[in-house]
Amino acid sequence: MTDLSAIEAVTCDVFGTVVDWRTGVATRADALLSPLGIDLDGGRLADEWRARYAPSMGAVNAGARWRHLDDLQRESLAEILAAHGVADRVDEATREALVRAWHRLPPWPDSVAGLRAIGESRVVATLSNGGMALLTNLVKAARLPFDVIFSAELARRYKPDPAPYRTAVALLDLRPEQVLMVAAHEGDLEAARGVGLATAFVERPDERGPGGGAERAADSDADLVVSDLHDLARRLRGAGAAGTG
Amino acid sequence: MTDLSAIEAVTCDVFGTVVDWRTGVATRADALLSPLGIDLDGGRLADEWRARYAPSMGAVNAGARWRHLDDLQRESLAEILAAHGVADRVDEATREALVRAWHRLPPWPDSVAGLRAIGESRVVATLSNGGMALLTNLVKAARLPFDVIFSAELARRYKPDPAPYRTAVALLDLRPEQVLMVAAHEGDLEAARGVGLATAFVERPDERGPGGGAERAADSDADLVVSDLHDLARRLRGAGAAGTG
Repeated sequence: MTDLSAIEAVTCDVFGTVVDWRTGVATRADALLSPLGIDLDGGRLADEWRARYAPSMGAVNAGARWRHLDDLQRESLAEILAAHGVADRVDEATREALVRAWHRLPPWPDSVAGLRAIGESRVVATLSNGGMALLTNLVKAARLPFDVIFSAELARRYKPDPAPYRTAVALLDLRPEQVLMVAAHEGDLEAARGVGLATAFVERPDERGPGGGAERAADSDADLVVSDLHDLARRLRGAGAAGTG
Repeated sequence: MTDLSAIEAVTCDVFGTVVDWRTGVATRADALLSPLGIDLDGGRLADEWRARYAPSMGAVNAGARWRHLDDLQRESLAEILAAHGVADRVDEATREALVRAWHRLPPWPDSVAGLRAIGESRVVATLSNGGMALLTNLVKAARLPFDVIFSAELARRYKPDPAPYRTAVALLDLRPEQVLMVAAHEGDLEAARGVGLATAFVERPDERGPGGGAERAADSDADLVVSDLHDLARRLRGAGAAGTG
């Protein structure tokens, strides 16, 4: 078992862990596509978009050239619209508005207060594949009380490549075992564990919508399994902190 | 005259512009050195330390190897203590506590509320030579409402090298003319202007202590001269914003 009193900073995955990407994207898609008479369910669009998410980033990590998440999202959206035969009915401005939907997503009910509670004893950071501008917009719009924003963009490699985790630890000027990675996704935590971070799994049963098959706590190898961010704050408070200077 | 309605983000110098480094360092130095019976005025130590600040960073920019600000500060402190003949009376823990004094500095009276007011219409970021960890500690301790933290560390070059300004603009996903650099130091603004940012000079007459010769507004070539951060917030609010998405 990990020594939680050694933890100085908590790095959080964002999409799915802190914010409800599916509801946010689906709502915006319905609002933008219905007036165009396009019969494509927002939730389905969100799911198909998210399905292309990891493969598109994997291709960047496998290649030599860094590409921004917004650009990957724009390409994935074009593929989905074409697959549904509606590509010629969705103009550039609407596509851009859809891509920007990922910049403003609703937090889970516990996120704002839970992060604030964690922040009372530790530094709280994002560690997301969203770009720095996307995360800045998202954190500001939802008033998420992060102390500092870290993005894969700073390492120019996407999670689960080890580079973004190492970059965050280095920029925090900490050792890996002083940093706790929080996510609703085991793959993210596995990669963090691979570079020496402590890990906490938070279950987000609604992440993929009704019957969508979100990842479950029972399948996690994390050091800590928590029910929500309040629960994590309590566990950390109980453990105290060695204290940052 | 710059079109303020084009400004989407405000990047702020920190030491001297947002926080009162001299009072913070002097107070901490007096508290740490007096008990050791060392007769070195805290304000004088702060001034001598700050005098070594720009040269130490200039040496890094001129060289091939990036070095963290904390390391530069540690070396400068050693020089000062040696120059005063007290090197052997200040142990490692005290030196470390002195270096960490730069991680917790008091904001100017208008800083917290002024930044919050600016944040109502624009993204507000740090753009400082302090490291990411230092800035995270400082912003958190003083509850400064920055949306995102940018440090020269991200570019591995110190201001006034153009790289940190360019890095901030790129990470904001903006054009230079959409970013307003705010500082109490003309050299900082001159460098920002050199890469196309808009500039605002804020006068901090007490930055260098009584009779310390802080930079004055009359000598500034900035697009905007403001009396404090509330004044800047008013000017920006008056100009509106094109609006981020």
